[in-house]
Amino acid sequence: MASVTGSLVIAGLGPGAEALVTPEVTAALSAATDVVGYIPYVARVAPRAGLTLHPSDNRVELDRARAALEMAAEGRRVVVVSSGDPGVFAMASAVFEALEAREDWQALDIRVLPGITAMLAAAAAAGAPLGHDFCCINLSDNLKPWEIIESRLRHASKADFAMAFYNPRSASRPEGFTRTLEVLRQECGPDRLITFARAVSTPDQRIVTVTLAEATPDMADMRTVVIVGNSATRRVGRFVYSPRSVR
Amino acid sequence: MASVTGSLVIAGLGPGAEALVTPEVTAALSAATDVVGYIPYVARVAPRAGLTLHPSDNRVELDRARAALEMAAEGRRVVVVSSGDPGVFAMASAVFEALEAREDWQALDIRVLPGITAMLAAAAAAGAPLGHDFCCINLSDNLKPWEIIESRLRHASKADFAMAFYNPRSASRPEGFTRTLEVLRQECGPDRLITFARAVSTPDQRIVTVTLAEATPDMADMRTVVIVGNSATRRVGRFVYSPRSVR
Repeated sequence: MASVTGSLVIAGLGPGAEALVTPEVTAALSAATDVVGYIPYVARVAPRAGLTLHPSDNRVELDRARAALEMAAEGRRVVVVSSGDPGVFAMASAVFEALEAREDWQALDIRVLPGITAMLAAAAAAGAPLGHDFCCINLSDNLKPWEIIESRLRHASKADFAMAFYNPRSASRPEGFTRTLEVLRQECGPDRLITFARAVSTPDQRIVTVTLAEATPDMADMRTVVIVGNSATRRVGRFVYSPRSVR
Repeated sequence: MASVTGSLVIAGLGPGAEALVTPEVTAALSAATDVVGYIPYVARVAPRAGLTLHPSDNRVELDRARAALEMAAEGRRVVVVSSGDPGVFAMASAVFEALEAREDWQALDIRVLPGITAMLAAAAAAGAPLGHDFCCINLSDNLKPWEIIESRLRHASKADFAMAFYNPRSASRPEGFTRTLEVLRQECGPDRLITFARAVSTPDQRIVTVTLAEATPDMADMRTVVIVGNSATRRVGRFVYSPRSVR
């Protein structure tokens, strides 16, 4: 039932500041008939005539994706909003999962619009800790067992990647981040730098860099992105950065 | 010799399309007295009265960083431009390297403004291949020996990261990417999906996804970002994506 007028755009709103929303995303929101997403992200979109907002709760990503595809198939111009970049631990994968089950939806006009993902804004606020090879791990253990997270932490350490962590810590399972810090201390030693970047680009932004020896689990919450340096990452003045070269 | 008026902004122009330049970066360029960077990136900034453009050749990053800091110390409002995000294999680390040598410059007003880095735009154009844990490796062997690149490829494969590669191949050392494909075939098998994203977000954009068995070195050039999926990455319709969960 694909319509010539229906479309689905999966758009990234960036980490919080309006000045970090790309013009491409702003234009897509201006053309939308429906905006779908997690409550706090939909709240960032200004109401206007002709636009229906569809905020929904967390952890219903697949239902939300299906509802958005359904509306697009009915001929509406739907924008699914994510914080940051929609392709990094956000709604794009959920939409493609929903699409797998419905071949008739696969001909729809679907586009993903990138956004400034939190680790890039966090790194910029701290200096340039991701200036050399790095990895990006979602520490939420809703989506994978701890054994896989631990294996990835150990391989990333042995590869001497800098590391960015999303969803480091939730009230319901604080022990995961405690274990993460233990593994990192074993693999990288006590002097490795770690940056806690909270609420990046918002008025609540707080950037703190300490050593792994000094790091404690309560330095992170679910609004925090954590960046661990590689073996060469160091401070210069108030900044922290990773050199471009291996010497 | 820091002035109260001088400043240095290290800004990311995104991968090419004007619609991917953040308003924050546009505002910084509007306020600049001097724009410094590699020739093709400075060419993206419109000339105007009161603005001096300082294009320079590739591979002079440290000299360029020093010149920019010098002008900021003299009281000018300098913007150093990079393609993509300045903190990902770009000018931010070079500026901080230059800053290490000059403590008197460390009190300057220095800010890094994030941008849409190429892998995010490439992933969005392809679907969502970076929707699960991933790593990001600069394959240029100007900056590190092949042994380190190989070690990182093997650890990333064993960790089952998706991988994004920058600077996969240059005319002067094409054998590096040939070796990369060999290591990946050994570690990940012939059926793993690999996406070649060339000139992302520009009129020349071309996105091709094949298996590792089908991949050949000439599919990449220096305008290409390469994304290798993890073991679960798959096609849905015309897209490629990595599921959020490990099952």
